[in-house]
Amino acid sequence: MVKRTAQDIRRRNRFDTLRCVYAAPAPVSRQDIAAATGLSFATVANLVAELLEVEVLVEAGHEESGGGRPRARLAVNAERGVLLGIDVAETGIQAQLFDLSLTVLRSVELPLPGAKVAPADVVETIVTGVRELLASTGTPSSRVLGAGVSVPGLVEREGGVSVYSPYWSWRDVPLRALLAERLDTPLYLDNPLKASTVAEMWFGAGRDVDDLVVVTLRAGVGAGVAVDGALYRGATNSAGEWGHSCLVLGGRECRCGKEGCVEAYVSTSGVARTVRELSPDSPLLRDPDESAVVEAVARAQSQGDPVAVETITRTAHYLGTALADLFNLLNPQTLVVGGWLADRLGEPLLRHTREVVARQAAPQPPEAVRLQRSTVPDNPVSLGAATFALEGFLNDRETFGPVKAGRRNARGARTRTAP
Amino acid sequence: MVKRTAQDIRRRNRFDTLRCVYAAPAPVSRQDIAAATGLSFATVANLVAELLEVEVLVEAGHEESGGGRPRARLAVNAERGVLLGIDVAETGIQAQLFDLSLTVLRSVELPLPGAKVAPADVVETIVTGVRELLASTGTPSSRVLGAGVSVPGLVEREGGVSVYSPYWSWRDVPLRALLAERLDTPLYLDNPLKASTVAEMWFGAGRDVDDLVVVTLRAGVGAGVAVDGALYRGATNSAGEWGHSCLVLGGRECRCGKEGCVEAYVSTSGVARTVRELSPDSPLLRDPDESAVVEAVARAQSQGDPVAVETITRTAHYLGTALADLFNLLNPQTLVVGGWLADRLGEPLLRHTREVVARQAAPQPPEAVRLQRSTVPDNPVSLGAATFALEGFLNDRETFGPVKAGRRNARGARTRTAP
Repeated sequence: MVKRTAQDIRRRNRFDTLRCVYAAPAPVSRQDIAAATGLSFATVANLVAELLEVEVLVEAGHEESGGGRPRARLAVNAERGVLLGIDVAETGIQAQLFDLSLTVLRSVELPLPGAKVAPADVVETIVTGVRELLASTGTPSSRVLGAGVSVPGLVEREGGVSVYSPYWSWRDVPLRALLAERLDTPLYLDNPLKASTVAEMWFGAGRDVDDLVVVTLRAGVGAGVAVDGALYRGATNSAGEWGHSCLVLGGRECRCGKEGCVEAYVSTSGVARTVRELSPDSPLLRDPDESAVVEAVARAQSQGDPVAVETITRTAHYLGTALADLFNLLNPQTLVVGGWLADRLGEPLLRHTREVVARQAAPQPPEAVRLQRSTVPDNPVSLGAATFALEGFLNDRETFGPVKAGRRNARGARTRTAP
Repeated sequence: MVKRTAQDIRRRNRFDTLRCVYAAPAPVSRQDIAAATGLSFATVANLVAELLEVEVLVEAGHEESGGGRPRARLAVNAERGVLLGIDVAETGIQAQLFDLSLTVLRSVELPLPGAKVAPADVVETIVTGVRELLASTGTPSSRVLGAGVSVPGLVEREGGVSVYSPYWSWRDVPLRALLAERLDTPLYLDNPLKASTVAEMWFGAGRDVDDLVVVTLRAGVGAGVAVDGALYRGATNSAGEWGHSCLVLGGRECRCGKEGCVEAYVSTSGVARTVRELSPDSPLLRDPDESAVVEAVARAQSQGDPVAVETITRTAHYLGTALADLFNLLNPQTLVVGGWLADRLGEPLLRHTREVVARQAAPQPPEAVRLQRSTVPDNPVSLGAATFALEGFLNDRETFGPVKAGRRNARGARTRTAP
């Protein structure tokens, strides 16, 4: 049975308020926030007072209110501190430094060792990246409010454990504890699907909707789900593991050991396999690196190369079929497609995919099938990771007033009873 | 952006409170409710006072509280009125009369015409069933608090419209309005997947969990999803349309016009097709009726008939693969399998399916993959439909106190902004 304490509700209301300020293109009044969130003016005033007190929000001018007292406009206090967002991907990491308005101040990309990557390699690379970011911007570590780290695979969030990594086949690595030995900042661990979804909810195509699916196509493939304006995590934080859904029973072998997974068709390597199936001697395969094959397909299709065009068509058929299943099962207000592969194959892929989805998602009315590209600028994974650090900072028992008994457990996710 | 008004929160708290009373095997105290829901004692006391006032709850004895005042125990007031739950299926309807504790008082089953079923046939059959129930129990229609009607396919709930029916290929039938001309009771329309899920949440395997998937296997196949203790409907109330997810790209033709749908493998007709594929001359096919084939498979497999055993194994392979995808995507605390087909093939099917799911849902830990049969006694669809009528009665602006401005819009689902 669900338990929703007064603190859960207060935290949720605080996030709705902040998400509203972040999502607005210009400073907003308390009245605007109340109208957008459905919260009462008194509740908003109360939450805003608290956020002003801890200097996360600042007043940024006033607006006329037709005779009454001018209304204060509120904005995020970008200067309040900095946040780190770190995207650990298969071949390298991207670390970004953000101000509190979540504007990127500086980025650094560092490769991971080409061969078998050990946890120590990831830790070392992250530490190097963070030090470089702070040194190059002259930021003292005392200014860092928190660091969010996204690592692929299953993540046990509360404990900060990488339960399973598909790329490096490691299990139960206490990544947060390992990083905490080297970095003196609060650390928040989660995976790229969750991070991308939060980024889309706060800063992208999910700003106006409550029920959202975000699909990420890179070397790995997965989804993030938001329900009723909140990230949906499921029982063990693994909701969204969509890449290994069965698309073709008995189909292509997947690196996960199963057959016919979505990822075997619509990932970077899936696209390269489609090219190889269509035309093993195609010049598109000249550079055997799979990312290079995708780049070649993207270039060649715009020149009408038949193998490239057919690759896009087939990929759209696979992707559209799989996305239609997500529409039918989850019926989101919008479905966002992002990730390196979607960026590279861009509108030609999306256009074909939309046609397939519209056919396959029937009898849903066409307006129920809203499919769009990610509108988060730059890297949604590191942005989302930094957003987790912001959430963590706001949930930290030391951020707001004196320590209260029982508050420690409120850190992180909603309280849940054991299954 | 999500809007959650104070009324939404109050309604949600009221349902959590009631669900707790219904789910408990014996009367509960206000303290029990507060402990189970996480709501404050004051909030619970307030909600209970309201529910006592409208006589939905009654005091049912007291318990000692260790020195203090004895605590009142609360139970549902079964005598407060009656509810109707109507399950419209492909070949007939089942109508049930419930008291307010949702105990079945009387059932009636009526066939639909064998050939093409028109909306008027469904309306006529429902009206006949309802009149029979009321006449045979001597219930005046003034005692009926509401009737829930489950109709297969896509349903536009607020408007009471059957948007699309897969069996009869009808579109945009204003079923509630048609019924309202004949029946003088508040009517609530939804589909069997939503109804089964609500029944499982209130009275079955979902009582102890917040995140739940309920899969129903009958002539049609589909899923219901509960997130955070509430039924998840999606943008247009079509979440859970899982039966037409692609399991085998380019596989069996499905009656929906697509190929390789889950429903083409794990429905009544899907199982019959598996028998035909395995052994077109099998005596299991003697009676060409597909339900009869399933009955024959159920009987024959217990006697070790190789075709029947292999049919179960293959069906488990299809079902397990499809369910593993649901586990991976939604990560529910528990997944419940119900419906006529699951009842008939029973534990042999579920046992094999569990093995397939455990293999396919890796790397999830086995304890994250909880798969069980429905524990709702009798028909979850009509029970769930009656629960919708109960919800509707409680949300009705006339149930609690004087009419307040703006309350009309609160009737039915949560308020949402347009996508």
